[in-house]
Amino acid sequence: MHRLVIIGGGFGGLYAAKALRRAPVHVTLLDRRNFHLFQPLLYQVATGGLSPGEIASPLRFVLRRSKNTEVLLAEVLDLDTANRRVLLRDGDAGYDTLIVAAGASHSYFGHDEWEPLAPGLKTIEDGTEIRRRILLAFEKAEREPDQDARRAWLTFVVVGAGPTGVELAGALGEIANDTLRHDFRHINPSEARILLMEGSDRVLPPYPPDLSGKAETALIGLGVRPMMGAIVTGIDETGVTVRRGTQAEHVPARTVLWAAGVEASPLGRVLAERAGAKLDRVGRVMVEPDLTIAGHPEILVIGDLANFSHQTGKPLPGVAPVAMQEGRYAADLVRRRLRGQAVGPFHYWDKGSLATIGRAAAVADFGRIHIAGYFAWLAWLFVHLMYLVEFDNRLLVFIQWAYNYFTRNRGARLITGGKP
Amino acid sequence: MHRLVIIGGGFGGLYAAKALRRAPVHVTLLDRRNFHLFQPLLYQVATGGLSPGEIASPLRFVLRRSKNTEVLLAEVLDLDTANRRVLLRDGDAGYDTLIVAAGASHSYFGHDEWEPLAPGLKTIEDGTEIRRRILLAFEKAEREPDQDARRAWLTFVVVGAGPTGVELAGALGEIANDTLRHDFRHINPSEARILLMEGSDRVLPPYPPDLSGKAETALIGLGVRPMMGAIVTGIDETGVTVRRGTQAEHVPARTVLWAAGVEASPLGRVLAERAGAKLDRVGRVMVEPDLTIAGHPEILVIGDLANFSHQTGKPLPGVAPVAMQEGRYAADLVRRRLRGQAVGPFHYWDKGSLATIGRAAAVADFGRIHIAGYFAWLAWLFVHLMYLVEFDNRLLVFIQWAYNYFTRNRGARLITGGKP
Repeated sequence: MHRLVIIGGGFGGLYAAKALRRAPVHVTLLDRRNFHLFQPLLYQVATGGLSPGEIASPLRFVLRRSKNTEVLLAEVLDLDTANRRVLLRDGDAGYDTLIVAAGASHSYFGHDEWEPLAPGLKTIEDGTEIRRRILLAFEKAEREPDQDARRAWLTFVVVGAGPTGVELAGALGEIANDTLRHDFRHINPSEARILLMEGSDRVLPPYPPDLSGKAETALIGLGVRPMMGAIVTGIDETGVTVRRGTQAEHVPARTVLWAAGVEASPLGRVLAERAGAKLDRVGRVMVEPDLTIAGHPEILVIGDLANFSHQTGKPLPGVAPVAMQEGRYAADLVRRRLRGQAVGPFHYWDKGSLATIGRAAAVADFGRIHIAGYFAWLAWLFVHLMYLVEFDNRLLVFIQWAYNYFTRNRGARLITGGKP
Repeated sequence: MHRLVIIGGGFGGLYAAKALRRAPVHVTLLDRRNFHLFQPLLYQVATGGLSPGEIASPLRFVLRRSKNTEVLLAEVLDLDTANRRVLLRDGDAGYDTLIVAAGASHSYFGHDEWEPLAPGLKTIEDGTEIRRRILLAFEKAEREPDQDARRAWLTFVVVGAGPTGVELAGALGEIANDTLRHDFRHINPSEARILLMEGSDRVLPPYPPDLSGKAETALIGLGVRPMMGAIVTGIDETGVTVRRGTQAEHVPARTVLWAAGVEASPLGRVLAERAGAKLDRVGRVMVEPDLTIAGHPEILVIGDLANFSHQTGKPLPGVAPVAMQEGRYAADLVRRRLRGQAVGPFHYWDKGSLATIGRAAAVADFGRIHIAGYFAWLAWLFVHLMYLVEFDNRLLVFIQWAYNYFTRNRGARLITGGKP
């Protein structure tokens, strides 16, 4: 039987695997983790609104009815494209077709020493670590007699005002002003300063300017201070050094969160070396109109690792809908090829973009129609609930969560891990 | 105002604090963690049924309306009973009355080197670590070609057949036989061997023999092999050495869980040194009929750290209802003393004991009435749901969980932490 190997169980890889459930193909899905993570709600874990298990589903569970599919918990080290083998840390896997959907992680723009000081948000462990830091900062402030030191504990810097940075900053605003309002006796949590630093001139740069403006207004309403044109030049244990225009300033802050840069999986470089793939400047693989690599029709690259620029002249964004549609297309391509049918180029159907700022505040870009506020937030909530329910049928959990979210409660604010 | 310090935010400490919400007392609750943990359901985290956030509530949230109460995230190092001060790692706290509710942890009976090999179940981190080991064992078995090595990965040893050991073994039986049934392609999870080793002659030793018998039958029905009269004499990376009668045997097993011994908090020894408290052989503090320490009427000890033997001649068990009632009694004592009223001795009202074995299987001991099976399980479910809802009002989450539990699904089976 035709052997398909998929690397990565994110939106791209998982949708490809699911779509091939009844195809005459033996599918092997490789992932380093045993679960699919619903990344769009990871910021809710980082801010105590949801528990890790509520936004993750075991890959084996999702694919339990796909009898042609096996899931391997494995780390990919290299590819042997001549012999069509994926080399794992413990063993290897042969393929006839390979789909690489290994995603992306943060980039610190050459400042990897910032990573422990300013964690980014990609994994479940990132989520619980950021949660720990945020909650611990309020605890430390509660017990800190010195005013300057307390102020540094109550200053939160979010670097980068893309969708993740905006979500984190908005959620921090809600935590400080609503969730923790009655919780402390010596500090007033609403005195927390939440600084959202962005190098460009507006929040949510990929969105239309009018929605950026509305998002900024909503953020200010939540107590966030957006700082535009702010270039972070240094991070250490005491805070952040930021340059705006010609002025440099040191902002004392004990909690710094990184939401600025994205860098494709190192598997991009492996594909460049072993299959001659071309990479863009953030390491994404330049793919053909059918998502294959030039000269290697048996290798497809999808999701955040792929740079698909054939439709609009610029790369499709690194969001879940793109990965899902590419995953389904890849599955379709595999099936049609086996039947000897021709396959047209991939076409992304853009249903619009949604970004949430906080409770009852979001922006939606449906091309010519722009919505902001309550209805955009309801649309955001509905879309995310539906996807979650599709994966794991935990409807009641998410109704309860939506209720809590609406009533400003965050039950999952546990300080776990780290040094006890 | 009268200063009351409570050490520990478990069932005892938290119920004492809650009961004093309107009393003319300044309450300081000290805990190393920022949340109250609903320990009776921790085994559900360890076996992928619930997420940590679902069985824990932030202490500040639970006590947010107690304006006379402050919560400090702090570690207690020592007591200065002469000057009535609790010494913390960072600072101190003065008291007029002190309630010590610091609980208990596992005891390895002098074999502390077994701890990393056979983790016990007390903290949230223990729960996620045990979950990681259980799930990883099945993953390793799926990829292991050697039959003996695979068998060792599929052998799970639970040491100790008290309520926690029985719960863990029963849940492991369900995972192997139900939850993971369709998940693997190379192994049959139901071939897993789950060995429940107990030194005495029956499971659930504190329960009446007829219920022990029924629990054992239910465990066998779930695929668990109870090994009674089994003394563990060695644990290493390859497995467990166990002696039964005069025969010693080495059982190859890659996953060993510890549910055997309990040891009181080290604060017991501090109370012995600083206040002349008498300890029993597991380090619990022998308390007076009013839960105080002899010679120190201003110090009360409650919960798992206390040995209260005045009622039945033997210590009350280390279970949540005892701690709750002691907490409420302690609060009442503080309030009455301030009014100059006399206080009678503590009396535990035993409403019965419940132990669960698995889905639709539990035993209930209501004194003369013994119940086993479905109705005992419904009683167990109802009692636990009510307590959880009382704390955090997450009714829908727990209805969903009860549904999943009934349908044998476990959605929170994530492998997190550890070496990735």
